[in-house]
Order: sequence, then structure tokens, then C-alpha cells
Amino acid sequence: MKIICYKDKLIKALNSVVKGVASKTTMPILEGILIQTNDNEIKLTTNDLEIGIEYIMDCEVKEQGSTVVNAIMFSEIIRKLPDTEIYISVNDKNLLEIECEGSLYKLATMNPDEFPELPKIEIENSIEVEQNTLKNMIRKTIFAVSNEETRPIFTGCLFEIENNKLSVVAVDGFRLALRNIYLNKQTNDFKAVIPGKTLNEVNKIISDSFEPIKIGVAKNQALFEMDNCKIVTRILDGEFLNYKNVIPSNWETRMKVNKSSLQNSFERISLISASTIEKEKKYPVKVQVDIGKITISCTNQTGDAKEELFVATEGKNLEVGFNPKYFLDSLKAIDDEEVYVEFGSSISPCLIKSIDNNDYTYMILPIRLKE
Amino acid sequence: MKIICYKDKLIKALNSVVKGVASKTTMPILEGILIQTNDNEIKLTTNDLEIGIEYIMDCEVKEQGSTVVNAIMFSEIIRKLPDTEIYISVNDKNLLEIECEGSLYKLATMNPDEFPELPKIEIENSIEVEQNTLKNMIRKTIFAVSNEETRPIFTGCLFEIENNKLSVVAVDGFRLALRNIYLNKQTNDFKAVIPGKTLNEVNKIISDSFEPIKIGVAKNQALFEMDNCKIVTRILDGEFLNYKNVIPSNWETRMKVNKSSLQNSFERISLISASTIEKEKKYPVKVQVDIGKITISCTNQTGDAKEELFVATEGKNLEVGFNPKYFLDSLKAIDDEEVYVEFGSSISPCLIKSIDNNDYTYMILPIRLKE
Repeated sequence: MKIICYKDKLIKALNSVVKGVASKTTMPILEGILIQTNDNEIKLTTNDLEIGIEYIMDCEVKEQGSTVVNAIMFSEIIRKLPDTEIYISVNDKNLLEIECEGSLYKLATMNPDEFPELPKIEIENSIEVEQNTLKNMIRKTIFAVSNEETRPIFTGCLFEIENNKLSVVAVDGFRLALRNIYLNKQTNDFKAVIPGKTLNEVNKIISDSFEPIKIGVAKNQALFEMDNCKIVTRILDGEFLNYKNVIPSNWETRMKVNKSSLQNSFERISLISASTIEKEKKYPVKVQVDIGKITISCTNQTGDAKEELFVATEGKNLEVGFNPKYFLDSLKAIDDEEVYVEFGSSISPCLIKSIDNNDYTYMILPIRLKE
Repeated sequence: MKIICYKDKLIKALNSVVKGVASKTTMPILEGILIQTNDNEIKLTTNDLEIGIEYIMDCEVKEQGSTVVNAIMFSEIIRKLPDTEIYISVNDKNLLEIECEGSLYKLATMNPDEFPELPKIEIENSIEVEQNTLKNMIRKTIFAVSNEETRPIFTGCLFEIENNKLSVVAVDGFRLALRNIYLNKQTNDFKAVIPGKTLNEVNKIISDSFEPIKIGVAKNQALFEMDNCKIVTRILDGEFLNYKNVIPSNWETRMKVNKSSLQNSFERISLISASTIEKEKKYPVKVQVDIGKITISCTNQTGDAKEELFVATEGKNLEVGFNPKYFLDSLKAIDDEEVYVEFGSSISPCLIKSIDNNDYTYMILPIRLKE
């Protein structure tokens, strides 16, 4: 194998594929990157058996071939080389040689035949969205994904396509995050639960642009496909929460509130509520809604905090306890200036919703206040 | 105590004094900030018994008094309040009340009489420099300060004033960093070794401006004095290295080299040399100087690396081993485009010096190469 390529192009490719490299593994080959030439292209592949990433780029191929080299070491060396042409080849001792101006590096290689290539998957259903849209949908739901491996299905986000609407849903038993967008092409209904870990990596790889990305789903796998880059992931098995059934459709108390003011109040009060928390549930903040006013308060060993906001309210007065972190996470994921906050009773979940449309719903379960 | 002050002014003061708050202590009072009114000023003081910081600011004092409150909690709350007037008072239950728009916080206080006030120190000698100059001198030497508490004197930087020249020197047994500047006022000769930890904090507090800072030295303490802010620190006891005697004055081999090129080469080669290092001394890089050329190389289990640079050389050819980290630290601290690198023999230290003047000398001890 012998290739010549420019540093900037190679770095772009490496930045994408290194996200798929296994970090803690007993199989050194999974810490590697598979480099394969194909006419005047090279294909870079990484695979940690959960996520696999493939990137194809043009370059000058002097001699066809393939090899596997430690991904981190290879990409770190490339990253620090000068911004010019780099000569990469495998020598007769099976070492990968990297040559660039006065620098010559030789790295041990591994057998490319032992590298687990990405599975060929047969897409059954797919949609196409803009990369920045997907980025947004991920960022605004993923924080609510569960970390508990005891219920693996909730460690992923549900992607549900129904009547040309994509809903992304995450839920961890204490709160739920739901984002919707309408697709502009006629699409089959389908759904799949994609691991949160994968979505985190996808989120780092995709750009904040209007470039398209295709999301395809097969029996056990999903595929994210962009211009030069493909990401293959397993999908999670099992029955996701029937989320539509758990989101209340009526409210007893509702307020229209400036998002930033509410967020700032919760941020300040968290300083007190979090400072002596041993178990999260122990020291909730108290949210009290009166006519035209909301008061958030908290008392513990550290001190005493009270936040008052004058807001437009409808319905009954109410007193209910919450973990302020869940409010904060949801509010941070909202770009709107104003939101509706809806309550049922002191033991019903609270909803944060858009004023103007149906783009998002965040649901937060209450915590019983101590008497 | 009852005061009214603007958030931005108070934050500026808090940013300075919180650097002096004890982080791990069995004395909760040292985690506090002493707030004392004095006519139309307040004085904020923190003291971890090693460094003490005092900041005086104007504000509207409605009722004189003093209190101690947890520094981190207090400053975090202030930081998150809206950018406007803040009312701070101690209530009849001895709680500190912070009021601002719809927010009311009450924090436990401690007895101000128990707070260790800063010692009054009698300055014997002092100099004045610009804050950005001091910042520079600290940044460019402090990395060579020793972390080993077995020889406490080397955990500080020597500040030596001699013939109106200030030299700052750090040394850790493997390398030495020396920076000089000429003072523009007639000054007594004196010297003091100031703890690295203090200098790190001073460095964060002082600004990158031409504003003056006074450095004063007493028997056991040093004082850094700025406009509103005073920092008091102990000075280290003991005999510092007679550094002038250990810096070689002659060279056998010298090269004039582009600083960035040399730094980039060492950065790349560190990827290989550091990757399998168990003990730093075990895998040095080899520096070989031939006529018109320097070659830096390294071989170990990870791979094989070679860097060649074409440079202007004088004197003998030479081969010598180094820990590349020490070269990198020194090169990063230099802003010049070109530097001299001087060698004695393969067992003598190497010097990195300015081409044009005597502003700095970095000395690095060699490592014996394995045969």
C-alpha cells in the first residue's frame, strides 16, 4: 500500500472515524483503523462492535493494499504534521511509514483480514433530514436518556415516524423529552430505538449545516449515511414506553413564563438545593403557583432560598415539589423566549410546552414534599 | 451590617479573593470570606494560612458591621444574580440575606472574630513592575518548579534583585528556567523564594495590563499589592541553588534554530517516546547534531520516529539524550522566532538562550543513552 494525501483532508476523515474506535477492549484490533485502497480512493473503517464508521476519501494511490494501524497513535501523528502532502505506505517489515517533510514515523500494523468489517445491512425504511435538524433533535432529547443498564431499552432514544412526522423521545423514569418535526417527503411509518451512546457520536460527527443525512433502519441495525461517511449501529431490542399514554392532555394550572427568567431562578435555587443533597429526592424545591405569581423555594442546612416571578397564570393555585435539575435540563434545551408550564395536581407530572406549536413536550415527575 | 452594591463590582472583588479560600480544611472558617464595612467601603478577606487576600471596594453602607460567610456559596449565588443592585445584610437570626429583584437567599454565617485576619507585615524591600510583566515572568518559569515536598525550597521561584535586575528562577533537579528583566528604578538588592502555589494564584488575579504591582518582602512574608487588592504569602525558608554556578558559560556545539520548527518536531516525537514510557528516564529521545542538521529520533515498542531539521550549526558534532518534555516546556515558554541551543558534551546540560539578549536561559540535563 502506498498513498499520498493532504493533511487537511485526512484529518477530516480521521476526526469522523476515530469516534468509532473502541477505548477499553481486550481486542487490540478494535483499537485500530482499517485503511483500504480502492482505485483512487481510500476507505477508513473503525468498529467497536456497537458502532461502526466508514469514511471514503479521494487520494493519490500509488500502490493498492490495506492495513490496520492503531487509530489514536496514527491520528495524533497526522494531526501534528505540517499542513502539506503526507506519504503513507507499508514497508517490507510490515510497518506503516508516514513521511512528511523532515519527519519519518514507522508504526506497527495489524492484519487487515482480522478486522471486523461493517455488516452489509438491508435498509427496510429510511428518512432524510438536514444534519443541523438531526443535531438539534439529538441535543434536545438525549439528556433524558436513562443511564441504568437494568432497563436497556431506555438507554436509547426512540425514533418514531408516523404520518410523515418524526418524533424523538427519551425517558428515564423521572422525566421525558419529546421533539417533533414534520418531514417534507411521504414516508412509511416505522420506529427504532437507537442507543444514546451512538447518538452522542453521531452528534459529534454530523455538521451544523443543511447538508442531508439519511437515517435507515433494518431488522437489527440502523444506518446514518452522509456524503463520504456511513455510521452503522445496532438498535435496541424491546418495547419502548407508550409515551403518548403517559403525557397528560389536561391541566389544572397553567402559566406562561419567560423561559430565561425561569431558568435563571432554577439555576440559582439549585445552588442551595444541590449543596446538601444526599439523595436527589430528599431535598426537592417547592414550586407554588398563585394568581399572577410563581414562588420557588428551598430550605436546608446550607440556607434558605426563595425566588419569585410574576407570570400569567390560569386555573387553580397549587403547591408541588420538583428536582430542579430536571427543570433546568429541559429549559436549557428550549430556544423559545416564552413557554407554557402545565400542572395537574401536586402528584401529577408537569409539562413544559411550546406556546405556538407542538414541536416539543418535556414532562417532569413531581417529588412529594415533606410536611 | 447592611450594604448595597452592584453585581459587576462585587463579582470583580470576589473573583480576586476566592483564590485565597482554603479548599480542603478542617477549619470551616477558612472556607469563609470575611466581609467588613468601613465607612463607605467594604473589605473582603480570605486566608488559607498560606495565602491571604484582601480586596477593598466602594459601596453604599447602610449599617456598619462584619460577618463571615461560605465563600464559594456566596460567590456562586452573586454570580448567578441579575446584573443590577444587590442588597446584602445580616438579619436578627444571624443569617446573611442576599436580596435582588425576586430573589431572596439566606445563608448561615460564622463569627468574624474567629477569622484569622491578615498579618500586618513590615516591608523591608520592594520593587514595582507592570502586571503583565510579572504575569509573563511567572508563566515562563513556573513550569520548572519542583513538586517534590522533600526539598521544599525548590517548590518556589527565586525572586532575586541584583543591580536593578530582577531574575526569576525555578529549578526541579532536571531543568532550570531563568528569566531576567531590568528595573527602571534604583532598588536595593534582595531576594526571596515565593511558593509556586502562591504565584499560580497571583498569576490568576493580576491582569494582563500595564497597571503597576508592588512586590514587597519582609522577614517571613511577601506582599503583592495592587490598586484595591493585597496578597500576603509566606516565603520559603532555606538556601536556594546557587544557580549562576551551575549554568555552563561555554559551549562545544551550538545551533541557531527556528523555535516553532524545533517545538513541532519535539511535539511529534513525544507521541512515540511518551507512549511506552514507564519511567521518564527510560526512553529518552536521541538528539544528534551534524554540520547543518539536527536529527531527533526515538525507537520503542510503539514504533520508530525520526525528525530532521536543517539548521545553522557551529562546533563539534554531538549525540545526546533528553526527555523531550523538558525541551517542550521550555520552548513553549519562548516567544522569539529563533533561539540558540548550546551543548557541552553528551553528559553536559543543554541551554536554550535568546539570540539577541540575556532575557532568558533554559537549562536541561541530559539522559544517558542506552547502548
